[in-house]
Amino acid sequence: MAYLNENYLKLQAGYLFPEIARRVKEFCEANPEAAKQLIRCGIGDVTEPLPCAAVEAMKAAVDELSVRETFRGYGHEQGGDFLRSKIAQCDYRDRGIEIADDEIFVSDGSKSDCGFILDILGDRNRIAITDPVYPVYVDTNVMAGHTGPADEAGRYEGIIYLPCRAENDFAAAPPNEHADIVYLCFPNNPTGAVASREQLTGWVRYAQEHKAILLFDAAYEGYISDPEIPRSILKSPARPNARLNFAVFPRPAASPVCAAVSR
Amino acid sequence: MAYLNENYLKLQAGYLFPEIARRVKEFCEANPEAAKQLIRCGIGDVTEPLPCAAVEAMKAAVDELSVRETFRGYGHEQGGDFLRSKIAQCDYRDRGIEIADDEIFVSDGSKSDCGFILDILGDRNRIAITDPVYPVYVDTNVMAGHTGPADEAGRYEGIIYLPCRAENDFAAAPPNEHADIVYLCFPNNPTGAVASREQLTGWVRYAQEHKAILLFDAAYEGYISDPEIPRSILKSPARPNARLNFAVFPRPAASPVCAAVSR
Repeated sequence: MAYLNENYLKLQAGYLFPEIARRVKEFCEANPEAAKQLIRCGIGDVTEPLPCAAVEAMKAAVDELSVRETFRGYGHEQGGDFLRSKIAQCDYRDRGIEIADDEIFVSDGSKSDCGFILDILGDRNRIAITDPVYPVYVDTNVMAGHTGPADEAGRYEGIIYLPCRAENDFAAAPPNEHADIVYLCFPNNPTGAVASREQLTGWVRYAQEHKAILLFDAAYEGYISDPEIPRSILKSPARPNARLNFAVFPRPAASPVCAAVSR
Repeated sequence: MAYLNENYLKLQAGYLFPEIARRVKEFCEANPEAAKQLIRCGIGDVTEPLPCAAVEAMKAAVDELSVRETFRGYGHEQGGDFLRSKIAQCDYRDRGIEIADDEIFVSDGSKSDCGFILDILGDRNRIAITDPVYPVYVDTNVMAGHTGPADEAGRYEGIIYLPCRAENDFAAAPPNEHADIVYLCFPNNPTGAVASREQLTGWVRYAQEHKAILLFDAAYEGYISDPEIPRSILKSPARPNARLNFAVFPRPAASPVCAAVSR
């Protein structure tokens, strides 16, 4: 008889978003009139149509694949060279961050990558995660067996939670204990709080000292308008000597994940 | 310091296809004239352009997302209802296989699903895999830590290999020992051998007896021309009483994976 991954049983009432989706669907089917007025506060779904440039590019790509002369088969595993180069240049180098094309990886989605990254990492890591945060960061660690069971407050044994509360202006400082992997998200999902240059520098110094990996979620960097707030942790002055092994930057629009590995 | 997944170190010389790709790229760059004549025998890449119907459907879908009136956000986690229903009807029910729409799951690719399925399953399963077979089936199990190290012949400790050789007409019979998970692939990649109705029935009986999960790769069913050869293991006469828990059917063209879970 096949055995299942029993770590899933530790998850609190299943995965949050599908459960919200199930209840919303049930409600809408039972109340079709009320459903028209429903404001969905679950997943931050996209609401605006694709921009013209994306529509044209996608149609041109389909045309390219429709005739033998320009048809191409499977793409590169790490993302098309033209795209990696464009991201490295326009998102990083043009903004003063030194990064090579081959430090950019384009995947099929940031959510699946949250799981994939844990497949690469071992089982003995101490994991620190800001609280609150995108629930997938916690849940993928639970599913991978990196935690104990949840307590009554829904906090999993073994995870170092980094509270982001009014007391610390919703930006956690490095903990006084050792962590091997740290999940950071600024501007934070869901609070919207940002981290200052000094705070990010503190995190880079922590990573250097503990030889830790920082998984930095910059999905909402587009909302930063204050020029004093860094849009990327790679903007931290500590970066040139950083022993950062890994940093993740999901981009909001097309949602590829670009992971920059320092050499 | 972050620990890595040391199971990757067991992999024999890295993952086969990226290594072939790396060497081909190196050769082509060094020998641009010879590269024009190169016949690639690595990945069975697609060579023909997209059919007209696919091109038109993809453009229509892009148009739908380009204006506010018809724009939709994230799709359903298990695949669009319209698509699941179409697959269940046209690929299965129209061909005499009883299956419900919600037994069909559409994913973002069969290769990533090979890993995802192992995330759902536990660590204590005995795994049996036809030999030869699509290398991802073995490698994902190695990466998930379900095997010991490889021996000199490249066979991993702990996997039950099911040899497909001239002696058994390239179609393995069930083993004399217990397995919890069995990977089958007919028509076989790479040999092209098919399994008869009797052979598939033998596998379903084995699965019933051992309460095993059969992961059945039918990606090449389109090549079957003999009406006596079942295109799906669900065509096995043992199916109505089957205790089959799971069966996977990657489809070649668009490569969604459809997993049929019996109720």
